[in-house]
Amino acid sequence: MRIAVARETHPGETRVAATPETVAGLVRLGHEVAVQPGAGHGALIDDDRYADAGALLLEEPFDGAELVLGVQPLDDAGRSRLRPGTATLSFLPATLMLADLVARRDAGLTSFAMDYVPRISRAQPMDALSSQSLVAGYRAAVVAAGRLREFFGLSMTAAGTIKPAQVLVLGAGVAGLQAIATVKRLGAVVRGYDVRAAAAEEIASMGAVPVDLGLDTLEGAGGYAREMTAERAALQRERLAPYVAAADALITTAAVPGRRAPVLVHRAMVEAMRPGSVVVDLAADSGGNVEGVEPGRVVMIGGAAVWGGSNVPAQMPAPASRLYAANVLAVVTLLTREGDFAPDFDDEIVAGMCLTHQGRVRNAMLAELLGSE
Amino acid sequence: MRIAVARETHPGETRVAATPETVAGLVRLGHEVAVQPGAGHGALIDDDRYADAGALLLEEPFDGAELVLGVQPLDDAGRSRLRPGTATLSFLPATLMLADLVARRDAGLTSFAMDYVPRISRAQPMDALSSQSLVAGYRAAVVAAGRLREFFGLSMTAAGTIKPAQVLVLGAGVAGLQAIATVKRLGAVVRGYDVRAAAAEEIASMGAVPVDLGLDTLEGAGGYAREMTAERAALQRERLAPYVAAADALITTAAVPGRRAPVLVHRAMVEAMRPGSVVVDLAADSGGNVEGVEPGRVVMIGGAAVWGGSNVPAQMPAPASRLYAANVLAVVTLLTREGDFAPDFDDEIVAGMCLTHQGRVRNAMLAELLGSE
Repeated sequence: MRIAVARETHPGETRVAATPETVAGLVRLGHEVAVQPGAGHGALIDDDRYADAGALLLEEPFDGAELVLGVQPLDDAGRSRLRPGTATLSFLPATLMLADLVARRDAGLTSFAMDYVPRISRAQPMDALSSQSLVAGYRAAVVAAGRLREFFGLSMTAAGTIKPAQVLVLGAGVAGLQAIATVKRLGAVVRGYDVRAAAAEEIASMGAVPVDLGLDTLEGAGGYAREMTAERAALQRERLAPYVAAADALITTAAVPGRRAPVLVHRAMVEAMRPGSVVVDLAADSGGNVEGVEPGRVVMIGGAAVWGGSNVPAQMPAPASRLYAANVLAVVTLLTREGDFAPDFDDEIVAGMCLTHQGRVRNAMLAELLGSE
Repeated sequence: MRIAVARETHPGETRVAATPETVAGLVRLGHEVAVQPGAGHGALIDDDRYADAGALLLEEPFDGAELVLGVQPLDDAGRSRLRPGTATLSFLPATLMLADLVARRDAGLTSFAMDYVPRISRAQPMDALSSQSLVAGYRAAVVAAGRLREFFGLSMTAAGTIKPAQVLVLGAGVAGLQAIATVKRLGAVVRGYDVRAAAAEEIASMGAVPVDLGLDTLEGAGGYAREMTAERAALQRERLAPYVAAADALITTAAVPGRRAPVLVHRAMVEAMRPGSVVVDLAADSGGNVEGVEPGRVVMIGGAAVWGGSNVPAQMPAPASRLYAANVLAVVTLLTREGDFAPDFDDEIVAGMCLTHQGRVRNAMLAELLGSE
């Protein structure tokens, strides 16, 4: 079948859903791959390299395509160009774009969402939330190192000892653990906190000191944290405050896909940090872990510079695209057989990722959300 | 005696020549320290902290001062406010500012230059060129990590392996070795080159691979490299070219105080780097190791972003000031006895640092330069 890869139209999106390596993989699976010229420019991939890998370069790649690959969901114009029955595979944060979901249903599109890959072992090679979080976590650490105008590591010099920086990382999912590993490599003294007690061991394994606030654990489904009560959240902030005040750099990474991020740090807590301190909030796009953060901007709160991440994986387009495209190739391998589109809806991964198909919303939770509107 | 610390007036200078810690040290030596309000603002040091350390906060700190401390040389206005016989201690790159040297001589000032501390063991605690190079080398590595939109280190992920970045560091003095150590910490594959063969061992000790171009060594005085012939420079560039082309990030640190930096990398060599590559040139202020670099700017050469460092230590004002102020305290300790100014001109360090005294230029090389004008 023909698989299409178009230029991303979302502002600031630099990634691409297929690389020359994954195009070669798709061709080996028996598919024809149509790539729109320029699709890889943001990720520094020339059209020639796609052609060398076996892609057709087509200005209208959707024509005749059965499956459309993307990073961001198609915009209205892109979606309206697809025939009923066409399948799409991209991020699709459906709870935040229910109108889009309805339009997809009504247009008879089959929608596979990378954000809905179940968090099971077999699906790990398809887990784009994790792969992109890895990129974001690394970037958060590098941004913090660049913005904090102090050494991260200890140095013994003839002119005296340079003390290591104190870094606090909140949220110990993939992004948080990668941030911890990276700042630790640079020699900082790192503390980590997560509402899930089980995370303490992972935090320690990365070389950071797990912070114990003496609160109940909040393990939830799929390895994510459960939502907490307002009382618990307030107590947590109160007990986190001295750790925030002691940090030279604070990196926050607590996000739950499709929901507003929890506010872990109030403005007054940032104001208690030393002048010259740095805050990097990876959750800024979904409301922020830090009160007052703005995505894509640096705002001063007290003497601290607060960096709000905006589509942070897209800030490292080449590696983020390589990982995302590999995730996508693994999903396409699952969805097709001998070059034909053949999704097995009895498969837990296929069923979990498919949000619309044959004129209906397949995901029970989303169907319920729509019904209740 | 009274020691003065004024606000730096040089554009972009954020450092300060004394910190609260070194003010306390100067007071313990029996001195009175006059600090101009705001002198520490660039380095995030409040006036109150100076006062707590025992400083007088005076808007006219030069009045009655026998010794004036600074980072940059005083400008004309500052210099003209000093009585004959007053001593100054600051960086003073005299070969680049001979007119200033003559004005100092004619004004009867005693000028001690931090750039002229001899490179002997006993002087290491006073070696500000080294301490500031340490800061610059760290900053170069962090800037390169932030600008290269690839991972520095290897990662094994469910979506495939991320290859480590290739970093080439030219010049293995204090700055180059610190840059090597820092990028190595982040997991990059690092190569290092220096014209001094003895540097290979130091490069290797930091975890980098020393590049051997099969050329003669150029050991010079004071641990610095000798100047090379045009033929040797051309051959060196020719043999370096493939290493530059293979690097994701190039960091250049070859500088000799008071002279134009050697051009190690021609424009065509940068143009051969991959798109998205990064160049960080720490020598941009003294002409640059990379042809086409501009201090304080990022210019694109081919597909590479070339970052020209401008007063790089001042980009980390707090640690740079702490180290510089410690160097200055060590020099003041050498220059004074029981609270009085008592330089021993028979001391190799004192003699080496003193450029003007009692109406004459003391440094033989500088006196010759002036005589030959």
